[in-house]
Amino acid sequence: MINVPKGTKDVLPSESFKWHYVEKAAAKTAELFGLKEIRTPVFEHTELFLRGVGETTDIVNKEMYTFTDKGGRSVTLKPEGTAGVARCFIENALFNAPLPLKTYYITPVFRYEKPQSGRLREHHQFGVEIFGSYSAKTDAEVIMIAKTLFDTLGLKNLELNINNIGCPKCRAGYNAALKKYFADRIDGMCKSCKERLEKNPLRILDCKEEQCKKAVSGAPSVSDYLCDDCLAHRKDLEDTLDLLGVEYKVNPNIVRGLDYYTGTVFEFISKDIGAQGTVCGGGRYNNLVEEVGGKSVPAVGFGMGLERLILTLEGLGLMPAHDGGVKIYLASIGDKAQKEVLKLTYELRKHGISADCDCMDRSVKAQMKYADKTAAEYTAVIGDDEIEAAAAELKNMANGSVSRVAFKDITRFLKDN
Amino acid sequence: MINVPKGTKDVLPSESFKWHYVEKAAAKTAELFGLKEIRTPVFEHTELFLRGVGETTDIVNKEMYTFTDKGGRSVTLKPEGTAGVARCFIENALFNAPLPLKTYYITPVFRYEKPQSGRLREHHQFGVEIFGSYSAKTDAEVIMIAKTLFDTLGLKNLELNINNIGCPKCRAGYNAALKKYFADRIDGMCKSCKERLEKNPLRILDCKEEQCKKAVSGAPSVSDYLCDDCLAHRKDLEDTLDLLGVEYKVNPNIVRGLDYYTGTVFEFISKDIGAQGTVCGGGRYNNLVEEVGGKSVPAVGFGMGLERLILTLEGLGLMPAHDGGVKIYLASIGDKAQKEVLKLTYELRKHGISADCDCMDRSVKAQMKYADKTAAEYTAVIGDDEIEAAAAELKNMANGSVSRVAFKDITRFLKDN
Repeated sequence: MINVPKGTKDVLPSESFKWHYVEKAAAKTAELFGLKEIRTPVFEHTELFLRGVGETTDIVNKEMYTFTDKGGRSVTLKPEGTAGVARCFIENALFNAPLPLKTYYITPVFRYEKPQSGRLREHHQFGVEIFGSYSAKTDAEVIMIAKTLFDTLGLKNLELNINNIGCPKCRAGYNAALKKYFADRIDGMCKSCKERLEKNPLRILDCKEEQCKKAVSGAPSVSDYLCDDCLAHRKDLEDTLDLLGVEYKVNPNIVRGLDYYTGTVFEFISKDIGAQGTVCGGGRYNNLVEEVGGKSVPAVGFGMGLERLILTLEGLGLMPAHDGGVKIYLASIGDKAQKEVLKLTYELRKHGISADCDCMDRSVKAQMKYADKTAAEYTAVIGDDEIEAAAAELKNMANGSVSRVAFKDITRFLKDN
Repeated sequence: MINVPKGTKDVLPSESFKWHYVEKAAAKTAELFGLKEIRTPVFEHTELFLRGVGETTDIVNKEMYTFTDKGGRSVTLKPEGTAGVARCFIENALFNAPLPLKTYYITPVFRYEKPQSGRLREHHQFGVEIFGSYSAKTDAEVIMIAKTLFDTLGLKNLELNINNIGCPKCRAGYNAALKKYFADRIDGMCKSCKERLEKNPLRILDCKEEQCKKAVSGAPSVSDYLCDDCLAHRKDLEDTLDLLGVEYKVNPNIVRGLDYYTGTVFEFISKDIGAQGTVCGGGRYNNLVEEVGGKSVPAVGFGMGLERLILTLEGLGLMPAHDGGVKIYLASIGDKAQKEVLKLTYELRKHGISADCDCMDRSVKAQMKYADKTAAEYTAVIGDDEIEAAAAELKNMANGSVSRVAFKDITRFLKDN
């Protein structure tokens, strides 16, 4: 027996409606805001992620699915969605398109992590990226896309946390202050934070280890190091969110786990799902496009894990229970009826009505059992009498009501009911 | 500058509507027939494809993206869609679900081929698989799903080619006859066919090389070697297609390139797109589930390359020209109006109307240029006068007509127009 690879998951035919539900809501929401879908390949040249995601991140250091293809190139299954979109933006000269260029995607991403609840090695993300605007109103727009989707799905009890981690200019001073502060405290901290201290002290701030959290609580705040531009940008974002009546909390410990962020970062944290409460995270990355080989173009976006979103909706009873089966199942008795039913079934399908019938010479009882288990909305049993009368009794399986309908009127009846 | 990996392709924001168009049509068609979507991971344990796709195929021998993960496992990016679905069927005991189990998928597949027109290293397939029915009526159903989709898309000039390549029982005699026939002719044939002669002579029949086609034309026909069961099955399929009024051609040279096929194989060949005319291929694979570790469960399905389908539709002028932009773009003059427009825009989005506005402090002229280039359906310019009157002139960009509408009525107006 061959199993699914560790840390990956099938979506069974009985479960895929949940994916359709969230994916349609996500696409619909993005389109309300004028975004269009963008798609990039499953794998990219490894260099893209080294330069884009950053060599000090856990993703690049420990978690990438990197391999050499038959042509000797190092390629990597995408560990996140943004770098590929930035590469696509540059390669296709989308900076010549009307800016801001507003895009969204739904994509698998691959990280070799320890499998645990809600963390798969192949998981799926809904992401948005808007290129070409420095404005904090665009940051607000990205945040509002996520919020509108959560509202649409009925997800409440979410806390929007925002922060501004500064541009490279103000980050230098802040990094120095963090290094100084943590230098005295590093002995009691975790191994990862010891590495972070030199390479990227900012990352220490969102360490989840207990011994590190304590040291973090007294750390210098980024707010004290922001330059005038970053302060003005932060204020503009807060004013815009206020104007739109959106509640948020300024949380200086939100820093995100990817190197490319500059300025605004944000997370939506669910108070209903415990420790791993972040259901959406994003921010601004004004240097990424240049970093991976393009002109300097500002950008802002987010990523949202769909597995976790679906688990959250299910846990809160917000997922529709099921998706139902075909509109009608036509059972047949005897060879003559089997042929008639086959023709009727195809006639209905041709007119856009989902329909099914037996292909396996089963008994009427077995046919009806199949119709019931596959949740057909209507059923009818057709034998010699029905053929002679050219009419059948259509049974509504939900309420048991029965309607006698001429064969020629079945399409119309099912369209109306 | 980092490029997209050779043989892969981005789908740009201006092009993704084409994918939505064919994917929605495919999903809708499958659902008309009572199929539900199934999803399997992008990569599988390599062994699955060795056993499922077959060690004598080009795919397994030359074209797989195989690599070792950080846990030392050999994994492979799926080179086709069926083997993963069969693995999923077994692992999740879907043989206990109501049979036939009817599934479809839309998935990327990966083959390290020489990039050429319509052949990418990452391409995408719409596939269907129906498990649990031996009946030729189910083969007809699978064929009809493809045909219904082509009809929906307006694709004409398609020729349905069917064949029956026999079960393992009758295949033995036919293989022996083929070996004997080609043994005398193999010197003048291509290198691949020389290899096929010993391992899988059936595959010689669909060789595209000129020097081989000539030898093939006089080869023994599979029809002369079919057992009674296979003959009856073939007749049942033909009778069912006749009953449904579907034209087809029996073509003994259709054999498909994968080892798992048994009995029925078929292709839809477009007469409009030249040499690589196959737009859909499939067949029955009664031994695959057992081959990859499950009980013996019959199955039948097809795969359809979406890139080629889109190219074909475009070539024939059957693809919608574009997908349009937001329902309304609200331009603003001045700071006060900018705030008002921002609120109005979000109010419209909240009510399910796609809307956009400027976030970048642009001039009205630049705003209108953006609205025009992004194909907004309506536009309005809002300044102090409009705010005082709490009304604006909405311009229909297609016909130039203008309607004066109170702010509070804009949602209703746009829903009705």
